[in-house]
Amino acid sequence: MSILEQIKTSNDVKKLNERELSVLCEEIRKTLVTSLAKTGGHLASNLGVVELSVALHRVYDSSRDRIVFDVGHQSYTHKLLTGRYEQFPTLRQFGGISGFPKPYEADDDAFIAGHASNSVSVALGMAHARTLSKQDYDIVAVIGDGAMTGGLSFEGLSNAAQSGEAMVVILNDNNMSIAENVGGTSKMLQSMRIKPAYLNFKRRYRRLFSHLPALYRFNHGIKEWFKSHLILSNMFSEMGFEYLGPVDGHDLKALENVIRWARDMRRPVLVHVLTRKGKGCSFAEKDPEKYHGVGPFDPISGELAEEGETFAARFGKALCSFAEKDEKITAITAAMAGGTGLEDFASRFPSRFFDIGIAEEHAAAMAGGMAKQGLLPVFAVYSTFLQRAYDMLIHDISLQHLHAVFAVDRAGLVGRDGETHQGSFDLSYLSSVPGMSIYCPASFSELESMLDMALYDCDGPAAIRYPRGGEGVYHSNHCETEYVLRSGSDITIVSYGVMINEALEAADRLKEEGISAEIVKLGRVRPNGFETVCESVRNTGRLIVTEDVCAFGSVGAQILAALASRPLAFSFRLLNLGDGIVPHGSVSELRRFCGIDAKAIVSRAKELLAGGDK
Amino acid sequence: MSILEQIKTSNDVKKLNERELSVLCEEIRKTLVTSLAKTGGHLASNLGVVELSVALHRVYDSSRDRIVFDVGHQSYTHKLLTGRYEQFPTLRQFGGISGFPKPYEADDDAFIAGHASNSVSVALGMAHARTLSKQDYDIVAVIGDGAMTGGLSFEGLSNAAQSGEAMVVILNDNNMSIAENVGGTSKMLQSMRIKPAYLNFKRRYRRLFSHLPALYRFNHGIKEWFKSHLILSNMFSEMGFEYLGPVDGHDLKALENVIRWARDMRRPVLVHVLTRKGKGCSFAEKDPEKYHGVGPFDPISGELAEEGETFAARFGKALCSFAEKDEKITAITAAMAGGTGLEDFASRFPSRFFDIGIAEEHAAAMAGGMAKQGLLPVFAVYSTFLQRAYDMLIHDISLQHLHAVFAVDRAGLVGRDGETHQGSFDLSYLSSVPGMSIYCPASFSELESMLDMALYDCDGPAAIRYPRGGEGVYHSNHCETEYVLRSGSDITIVSYGVMINEALEAADRLKEEGISAEIVKLGRVRPNGFETVCESVRNTGRLIVTEDVCAFGSVGAQILAALASRPLAFSFRLLNLGDGIVPHGSVSELRRFCGIDAKAIVSRAKELLAGGDK
Repeated sequence: MSILEQIKTSNDVKKLNERELSVLCEEIRKTLVTSLAKTGGHLASNLGVVELSVALHRVYDSSRDRIVFDVGHQSYTHKLLTGRYEQFPTLRQFGGISGFPKPYEADDDAFIAGHASNSVSVALGMAHARTLSKQDYDIVAVIGDGAMTGGLSFEGLSNAAQSGEAMVVILNDNNMSIAENVGGTSKMLQSMRIKPAYLNFKRRYRRLFSHLPALYRFNHGIKEWFKSHLILSNMFSEMGFEYLGPVDGHDLKALENVIRWARDMRRPVLVHVLTRKGKGCSFAEKDPEKYHGVGPFDPISGELAEEGETFAARFGKALCSFAEKDEKITAITAAMAGGTGLEDFASRFPSRFFDIGIAEEHAAAMAGGMAKQGLLPVFAVYSTFLQRAYDMLIHDISLQHLHAVFAVDRAGLVGRDGETHQGSFDLSYLSSVPGMSIYCPASFSELESMLDMALYDCDGPAAIRYPRGGEGVYHSNHCETEYVLRSGSDITIVSYGVMINEALEAADRLKEEGISAEIVKLGRVRPNGFETVCESVRNTGRLIVTEDVCAFGSVGAQILAALASRPLAFSFRLLNLGDGIVPHGSVSELRRFCGIDAKAIVSRAKELLAGGDK
Repeated sequence: MSILEQIKTSNDVKKLNERELSVLCEEIRKTLVTSLAKTGGHLASNLGVVELSVALHRVYDSSRDRIVFDVGHQSYTHKLLTGRYEQFPTLRQFGGISGFPKPYEADDDAFIAGHASNSVSVALGMAHARTLSKQDYDIVAVIGDGAMTGGLSFEGLSNAAQSGEAMVVILNDNNMSIAENVGGTSKMLQSMRIKPAYLNFKRRYRRLFSHLPALYRFNHGIKEWFKSHLILSNMFSEMGFEYLGPVDGHDLKALENVIRWARDMRRPVLVHVLTRKGKGCSFAEKDPEKYHGVGPFDPISGELAEEGETFAARFGKALCSFAEKDEKITAITAAMAGGTGLEDFASRFPSRFFDIGIAEEHAAAMAGGMAKQGLLPVFAVYSTFLQRAYDMLIHDISLQHLHAVFAVDRAGLVGRDGETHQGSFDLSYLSSVPGMSIYCPASFSELESMLDMALYDCDGPAAIRYPRGGEGVYHSNHCETEYVLRSGSDITIVSYGVMINEALEAADRLKEEGISAEIVKLGRVRPNGFETVCESVRNTGRLIVTEDVCAFGSVGAQILAALASRPLAFSFRLLNLGDGIVPHGSVSELRRFCGIDAKAIVSRAKELLAGGDK
């Protein structure tokens, strides 16, 4: 039995000696590589925090202390150490454990994670709760340097620093977020890397005065004097944090010492840890961005399973071809150049490419400034992350009816990343933005045509939303606002985007049973008067709308409101994601789970036909 | 004719001599006080930036250069200097000029403003546009120290610093945002105030090398060495900004010099200006927070017109009484303790009161941490500013079904602050948040009861939304989800919140004309099955819904979708704010303008009755 197999809690980790710990770290790395080779997942970032995670469990008890992971895709080792070793092969599988912290999975997962930069704010809230409730557990936030570029982390740090609360912020600095870091924050962190002398000084100084709190306070002035001479003051200490670091993130002993020491200072402390993404796995260490989030791969060579063409890649290509002809086009990404297909654009049009870090709010506001002065900015961003910029969409874009394009990638179900990443809400929140046009391509060909329309047929904000992954069997190009894709007489099925494939399959199956379904495909869902849909429902008397967005504000709900103006009786079923909270699994599993796939359409259609409640 | 009357453009300001400029500043201050005494407006902040605004127009030409005001309520002097002196008495009046920059009013208003912390991002976007378009105008962002606490400003600064773009950020540091500043940013700015030596050194240094660019670059290394010995490095220069300051914001000559100098450096420069809110007006200078945003007042004594009891004040009182009995309750505000009625709470329960600065994202995420660890956080925030926290409402609160309460103040029409401040969107975006309950009190008494319900009858996120100002004639307490407030047989009128007063008045007027209206009042609009509404429409066959929210996601639209399940014919009119963009004016003027008031209800009701399209 390996050491890892025997670890069930933080307490088990604490019992190990130095040699056993070293073996444990090796076992963890081996498990990560071999297991993720089958399930896929976030490889490089997890390999980088093996020692850090072990050190955290040496110092803290995750069942009562609160370890708040930022983003959370780096929590695999934490999961392995807290009773989920046996379930680890189910990672990211439908019904299995999540690739992100989930309090419903274990009390050791202190808080949900998935979106960046919230951990310090959450940890501060917990620290206040701990203090006000007169309890005495410890609180630590673990945040990467990439997430540090998000303004939310700045707000959290600024408030935490001044709170005086006993809490530790671990800055996991691998000098690379998902893509390369950008902006002034990164520069600041780099400049801090050159000041190793300070930590040693502090350690000696603390040791000297640690048992003499009164003397320590008395000496505070002296310390400040020393500090100002030993290091340049930095943002964190100017804010009010005690800053410790940088410390080697792969030196378990040093890590454990500095974290324990930080914990015992009983005030806001920032520990600056230097780690290496992909550590201990040659191919991941060599190209950590490639091995950030991966599907299955060969555990020896690192060779990735071939992926088919994706909407993201086709978007990137299409944008390049428009940018060739139109110098006004700029492309903006929030640290997702690879994910959003913009790598080619970045190398071909470097002066028109802006990777602004994990800062969606800034991206949208900056796009507003660009659009106001005559550029044609395109912000490519995942649906779930664009939620961050909701206010800017209204305030900085829409109120002046500025023409900016939002390439909303990963719209609808995203699959294995689960609840925090599903693109459930964009259709609803984008529809509330005044003057917003929303295009929903169902094929690569439509993606290209609709990008053209979003760029040149609109005069206000425009969104083009497309899913993770690639096309289904539908390859055609019908960009009409409403289009009767298949004629029928018994029931009207409405859909848009790649969900049209489910509608087509359902219509085929219904046909086999002698039921004639009419499919109305929507190209631009907003603005849309749903005239064709209403006409079709007038003929069939039955309506099914199937879509992978939340119920509130769904196209189905909008169609019902549009039908209210017409005096006609009809029966209907709206198939959608309900409240929008959908767990992880493959997209097809999730479509089935949510009851929006072809099978569900067929069942609901038969209910409507049987019910006779026409 | 005064000097001010003769100023129409930036160029006119440039022609004045030192004595004339001094007179101009006096005239501006006098105009601000006497005019705002009648119209109301943002007094203290505008008095603080008279010299700064004049200096900006001395250095820049606002018709082609881009002056981006952050928040924008400090743009009155700018308006007075750019052709709007004669219209100034119409400030904030319906049909008059806006209290915020509005490009539709003048090209001199570079960008919309109203929400904090976006100016650097917008200015950076403009700078990129300028550079890519090979044009040569200048760009300057004017941001207060309060707005600097928002993470968006950090994102903007971080990216601007690294851009190398020629742009100037003016930090207007009055050491007080709307309320007192909080957090580490404030502390940093304070520590910078003690370094006046640096500016003088820099000025001399620049003068020495200004005509020798090559030598300047050669000397850069020496400069850095000097710098590290003269001042502690600060956040801005660590980020990559050239930092100039602090400079006296009421010394026009010094201001003009440093701004011109900053402009000519052709790179990202931050100018730190110290100003005094209320400057030159004794009562405003003495209590700048009281005179931040005011209604009419006596221009000599400063005595403010008596304001009636407000929902905000009643909310504050009610929360105090709940907090007395329940130690779990905490109150959070984003620099709006006064505006949201939390001042009493702050003094009575200081350890449970959190003013986190202009940082709504952080507020919501922190509330999530508090709720997860057993507290009962209440975040009091204006509807329009809560848009900033949309993602956190979903990610950090809703996904874990945490119980946090959002006291959504200034919901619906807010009146004289106009487009950027109307609470048009909250009903829509809050409804898309999974598990969110939404309460809409129509009276003070209901506010208290519904706050009780939001605190203790819900187990997930809950919002209680109420308007700016006070009650109408409706004083009763009917907190039922749906309640037949008045029985009738000809038409169903649905409303909620203070809009119920319009419904009541309409029903009275309709009665005079022999039309019997049934009023269904909604207490909790979500979740709500609208059973009573549907039943009423079944009886009357006619429906009017009147509400001061945007059409998308409105209660009216939701009711139509609910009615689709019932086989019944009815005619209807939905009265709402359309796309949600509504200009400034009094609330009653705006209700009339939008066609949602009693008069509009009566007209629409008669149309429905005449149409016979039942």
